[in-house]
Amino acid sequence: MTYCVAIATEQGLVFASDSRTSAGPDQLSTFSKMHVLMEDGHRLFVLLSAGNLATTQSVRAQVRHDLEFGGEPNLTTVRSMVEAAEYLGSMSVKTRQRHTEGPEAEADLSATFILGGQIEDRDPGIYLIYPEGNFIRASHLTPYLQVGELKYGKPILDRLARYDMRMDEAARLALLSMDATMRSNVTVGPPVELMAYESGTQTRKWHRVFGEDDSYMRELRRSWQINLENAFQRLPELPKPAARRPDGGE
Amino acid sequence: MTYCVAIATEQGLVFASDSRTSAGPDQLSTFSKMHVLMEDGHRLFVLLSAGNLATTQSVRAQVRHDLEFGGEPNLTTVRSMVEAAEYLGSMSVKTRQRHTEGPEAEADLSATFILGGQIEDRDPGIYLIYPEGNFIRASHLTPYLQVGELKYGKPILDRLARYDMRMDEAARLALLSMDATMRSNVTVGPPVELMAYESGTQTRKWHRVFGEDDSYMRELRRSWQINLENAFQRLPELPKPAARRPDGGE
Repeated sequence: MTYCVAIATEQGLVFASDSRTSAGPDQLSTFSKMHVLMEDGHRLFVLLSAGNLATTQSVRAQVRHDLEFGGEPNLTTVRSMVEAAEYLGSMSVKTRQRHTEGPEAEADLSATFILGGQIEDRDPGIYLIYPEGNFIRASHLTPYLQVGELKYGKPILDRLARYDMRMDEAARLALLSMDATMRSNVTVGPPVELMAYESGTQTRKWHRVFGEDDSYMRELRRSWQINLENAFQRLPELPKPAARRPDGGE
Repeated sequence: MTYCVAIATEQGLVFASDSRTSAGPDQLSTFSKMHVLMEDGHRLFVLLSAGNLATTQSVRAQVRHDLEFGGEPNLTTVRSMVEAAEYLGSMSVKTRQRHTEGPEAEADLSATFILGGQIEDRDPGIYLIYPEGNFIRASHLTPYLQVGELKYGKPILDRLARYDMRMDEAARLALLSMDATMRSNVTVGPPVELMAYESGTQTRKWHRVFGEDDSYMRELRRSWQINLENAFQRLPELPKPAARRPDGGE
């Protein structure tokens, strides 16, 4: 499995992804799922991907091919993030169709993407591109998007993600959401990639890879565990005497 | 959907369940999913159920029928919690088989149960009974079991559930796990039932129903949100300067 999350804040965008690819418990390998498709000071496009690895690699290869040989559209010609999302979505659908035409095609070749970035002085944004090629954009009310094994890491986002949080806060929140997922599901695993983009710069602020034994990840995990235990100890006592409900019918 | 969780501690057992039954967004109704099958001072059996409502109701009806008319085995004749789990598991399988023989049977009639309790001076325990009728028992290392929509509420259990925690702590933890699930998934909903059993008593210590606007649930949720925000603010700063990873191949 995979877990990727992106958070849109007032200051900019934060992206996090795991790196474990599995096709059964004895076929684990490590692939980056975070790719900077373009970063030239005018346009920044970042892609997080979940789903079939052949499909996601093929989509990225075609993006590069279109850029190199001037295919239309390409990432230098799309006029908005919406056009970029449409471009990637239709490429994802076509890739899958091409490989499910054969008589032997039974595997699930679908892929889901998060596309984030900014074009010139237009608004930055993050988009979730479904296997069908359609997409949604994160809003100020729900400023995050997830792909892959998303349920374990959702509660902490629902409680703490805010559009007006600082970027470093959003980065730590993305790491916590990732850590919750890795702890509860062994098919999501390190290294964890974390990237931050400040609006209006069209270039990465920072991009970091946290390995399995990264000292900051260890410290973050330890600190969160202690803080969480303290938070738990300070909860209000259960009401006493708690009423006893006799067991009845339905 | 449904969410039920049970935690086994040194002091005793704690059970929590939601009450929402859904068959589509316009077919929501409220059913208790926590049932005390027997409680006579010698034997206590508590059942939490997820899955097809007709199957779970039928299993409970047969348990009562066996008790009333002396079917063999029944809850007064089983000699251990393992025998009780086998009895319920085989009943669940038979119920489902009976209703999937017809030509029109296409619905998923499967059900999953958590059985908890104690017989005389034997060890108390909680068991997860799968739709196939087989089952597992919680251990000291992983002292909780879940059925239904379990992913959202799992991270908090993985971080805080311990066999040596007090029963009131386990009760609050079960409520937090339930609240995380209800917040992230609208098909799990109130009222929430919470029950505690102290080992060796063969009778409920308390059993309480928390409605949608219950003041304690509100206070617990508010307090947890504040404590969690504080815990989040006390996390270590990200390392600076964060290395920048140039985007390369795969």
